[in-house]
Amino acid sequence: MTATIPETTGLTGQMLIAGTPVRGTGTPIHALNPATGETLEPAYHYGDASNVDAACAAAAEAFPAYRATTAEARAQFLEAIAANIEAAKDAIIARATAESGLPTARITGEVGRTTGQLRLFAAVLREGSWNHAVIDPAQPDRQPAPRPDIRQRSIPLGPVAVFGASNFPLAFSVAGGDTASALAAGCPVVVKGHDAHPGTSELVGRAITDAVAASGLPAGTFSLLFGDGPDLGTALVTDPRIKAVGFTGSRSGGTALVAAAARRPEPIPVYAEMSSINPVFLLDGALATRGADLGKAFVASLTMGSGQFCTNPGLVIAVDGAGLDAFVTAARDALADAPATPMLTPGIATNYTTGVDALGKHAELVGRGQAAETECACHAALFTTDAATFLKSEALQDEIFGASSLIVRCKDAAEMRAVVDNIEGQLTATVHADESDFDAARDLLPTLELKAGRILFDGWPTGVEVNYAMVHGGPYPATSDSRSTSVGARAIERFLRPVCYQDVPKALLPSVLTDDNPDQLWRRIDGQLTRD
Amino acid sequence: MTATIPETTGLTGQMLIAGTPVRGTGTPIHALNPATGETLEPAYHYGDASNVDAACAAAAEAFPAYRATTAEARAQFLEAIAANIEAAKDAIIARATAESGLPTARITGEVGRTTGQLRLFAAVLREGSWNHAVIDPAQPDRQPAPRPDIRQRSIPLGPVAVFGASNFPLAFSVAGGDTASALAAGCPVVVKGHDAHPGTSELVGRAITDAVAASGLPAGTFSLLFGDGPDLGTALVTDPRIKAVGFTGSRSGGTALVAAAARRPEPIPVYAEMSSINPVFLLDGALATRGADLGKAFVASLTMGSGQFCTNPGLVIAVDGAGLDAFVTAARDALADAPATPMLTPGIATNYTTGVDALGKHAELVGRGQAAETECACHAALFTTDAATFLKSEALQDEIFGASSLIVRCKDAAEMRAVVDNIEGQLTATVHADESDFDAARDLLPTLELKAGRILFDGWPTGVEVNYAMVHGGPYPATSDSRSTSVGARAIERFLRPVCYQDVPKALLPSVLTDDNPDQLWRRIDGQLTRD
Repeated sequence: MTATIPETTGLTGQMLIAGTPVRGTGTPIHALNPATGETLEPAYHYGDASNVDAACAAAAEAFPAYRATTAEARAQFLEAIAANIEAAKDAIIARATAESGLPTARITGEVGRTTGQLRLFAAVLREGSWNHAVIDPAQPDRQPAPRPDIRQRSIPLGPVAVFGASNFPLAFSVAGGDTASALAAGCPVVVKGHDAHPGTSELVGRAITDAVAASGLPAGTFSLLFGDGPDLGTALVTDPRIKAVGFTGSRSGGTALVAAAARRPEPIPVYAEMSSINPVFLLDGALATRGADLGKAFVASLTMGSGQFCTNPGLVIAVDGAGLDAFVTAARDALADAPATPMLTPGIATNYTTGVDALGKHAELVGRGQAAETECACHAALFTTDAATFLKSEALQDEIFGASSLIVRCKDAAEMRAVVDNIEGQLTATVHADESDFDAARDLLPTLELKAGRILFDGWPTGVEVNYAMVHGGPYPATSDSRSTSVGARAIERFLRPVCYQDVPKALLPSVLTDDNPDQLWRRIDGQLTRD
Repeated sequence: MTATIPETTGLTGQMLIAGTPVRGTGTPIHALNPATGETLEPAYHYGDASNVDAACAAAAEAFPAYRATTAEARAQFLEAIAANIEAAKDAIIARATAESGLPTARITGEVGRTTGQLRLFAAVLREGSWNHAVIDPAQPDRQPAPRPDIRQRSIPLGPVAVFGASNFPLAFSVAGGDTASALAAGCPVVVKGHDAHPGTSELVGRAITDAVAASGLPAGTFSLLFGDGPDLGTALVTDPRIKAVGFTGSRSGGTALVAAAARRPEPIPVYAEMSSINPVFLLDGALATRGADLGKAFVASLTMGSGQFCTNPGLVIAVDGAGLDAFVTAARDALADAPATPMLTPGIATNYTTGVDALGKHAELVGRGQAAETECACHAALFTTDAATFLKSEALQDEIFGASSLIVRCKDAAEMRAVVDNIEGQLTATVHADESDFDAARDLLPTLELKAGRILFDGWPTGVEVNYAMVHGGPYPATSDSRSTSVGARAIERFLRPVCYQDVPKALLPSVLTDDNPDQLWRRIDGQLTRD
């Protein structure tokens, strides 16, 4: 069945290339409402290499003027995008809910997260530390040779390609964290929208395009394309005018982009956030005092959003005993009550089912959620195995995108330690510990630091704060670059590089490096931080 | 002819693996005095895969304890290395001078640069900003959900492989900038010493090994290997325990290491500083007032150290006219007086001659320095061509390691602009400008920022300060990672990654993140920098 376009959205099915709507000439795709099976109009036709070329040419042309804007101008631009998204909020929420099958409350929250993220980067721009301004004044009398005047600041890398993620149609998509941080850095952005939510992408793309125009910025500052990954995505990443890539998605997709970027005549950084099973460690004291409560809370985290989070708790590790038994029983019971919820796309649902079936061959089933009525739904699953089996099978560490988790039962602390040593790089590692567990936790922590970007205690990994201290990143294969975060203030650093100025005449210095420091920015002068 | 080992050095010809001298079983190599042709004893036998394995195993074993040391302990360790180098200074200078053919004054200066570099990182460690400590305190009353307590700091990546460079037997070799910054970060280091100066490498390796022991650090904190690049070097970069690589050398060597690192099951960052021809722009006003002086000063920079600097001025760009004529005449005359000086190795001398011969086929010879008496010497060369020819030939941008430079004559400012747009990524870009040139310089600067890591005015690119503001890096192919610098305080960032701690009990937090801030470090709290 085919639904008409909701009046409120006025979707056109077109890409947005440097402010101009462009209809693709390739394969037409439709979004699907995974909750109803309904096909959503209009059709979005894939773009081709000529569209990539046009978007990249416009981005390259826009770059000099865009990067020359003041930080204040870019801050206001990000705020204008946020305001435009808020103005179109009803249409965006309606369409994103229909395209994702996610509850309205979740999508509403995601709008807030997206606008909050844009405003965080506006604040980051105004605070100014992102410039990394450093001044080592001249020492004309130094022996044996005078010291020149050397100053440093950060500048943007150039046009950035951003790949929208399926699971956050707003916060990790067209105006998501990658776009916001790249635009903040002074980089034009070319987004490849995700096929799962083209209508949401168009609406948000327009919010950005309108803000570009209203802010008097060059049109090429932003473009939105549609197309398939291996074809249009590769063309985008290998375009010589693109200087960095932000991606959130599968391990296969991420590693393909990393490889394509590495093969370029000029290799470029790819920030790919790929796969993570987010181990949860239940220590003995915590299990003994609140095993059942933990089991219940665990299932709430596991099944939230059909488990379609990068930070979904896909692995639970504990030492066998009555506490773990209580946890498992409570989790099984809670799971039995968990309703089947829609998954984002039929493809994701199929992969989920395949993954769960494969896991079932290597691990013992603890229980499942309620069975799905439609095909595109998540029938949550919980498995268990012993540590010896886990240590022997690499397949047990494969991410299953969706609500599926594996409880690894260890004989003792030493075996738990062997499991920890054996896990791959992760976005998060969670520890549940009582005070009686602190010595064990203290032993565990140094290893967890090497395995994950975020370590959390007595909570659940789903739910990522957007602030200054957040790290949403981690060692390979969680991401392709553990030195960075894709969420939070430091995400801007991914798109900057340092340049230094030696004996550059005062009249030619960028304002962040002049002696008078007109904006009273933090700068490092002769090694000391100061706002003088 | 074969010289005996100088008494003062007591060289053994052995590698140093986790504090233990180990004699390789592979091909024996000898250093050669390029100034005299003399073969220097003792023989250094190449190591093999088993030595790589032993060094990496020791580094991995040392890592937990080494990274757990305080910043103060690591600062004292770096100072101990510097003191040990100073104590062995006479032997090091004698051997490094013999192995490199570089003048004693230059090598003496390089010892000072090396110890200064170690002490700079000691200061960086004590200042503490490298921790990148961030605290977003909990907001238990936030609606709709409480905000957790989130804190962030940086931790070291793990064992680092460092490749010694031929042209700085001290400052970019065994205890050079890569080693100093990696050790400062808390990473054990495995160095592959350069074949050109194995004796210097052994002496400096001992200075580090002795400091490791005296500081009570795990022996695996440092190892020194000898071996060939494709064999032992690749084994080192692909060892799963190595987590990052520092390299200074050729483009072919650097790209091979980058490719090897990318092929690993767990790819790792490679910081390769590769090739740069360091364009020098002579603007009209400067040429008119001091063309001849600039020509003379240029030749001094060009021929210093036989031109064997990453920052050697290999390209000069100016608009044709009387000022440029005066520059060229003065440069030719100065060059005619320049004595032939030894090159680092016969291989480097051969490559230099091949490169100069090839350049001579595409460009017109301006003049040469004095002819060499020995084969392993640099017969400095200066060529010229017009901009139209330069723009048509990629080969004219190839780095020739040694004193060779090409003057590109432009018809006008527009043609000069076309040349600028066409050059590859560089370590440096130099501008000579009078006040009358400031408008032209202002137009040029934004492009130079995108092409180079360091922009300097009215000086010469050779000579790299080691301080807080320095950037020794730049866009590909100058380096493999333009986001970093291999010289100066920020070099430490290459070996760190952020980790965040969510609701981690106070008793388990690292001291840089506790509420009381015992060391009064700079931290970002709720978005604001403070030492509270």
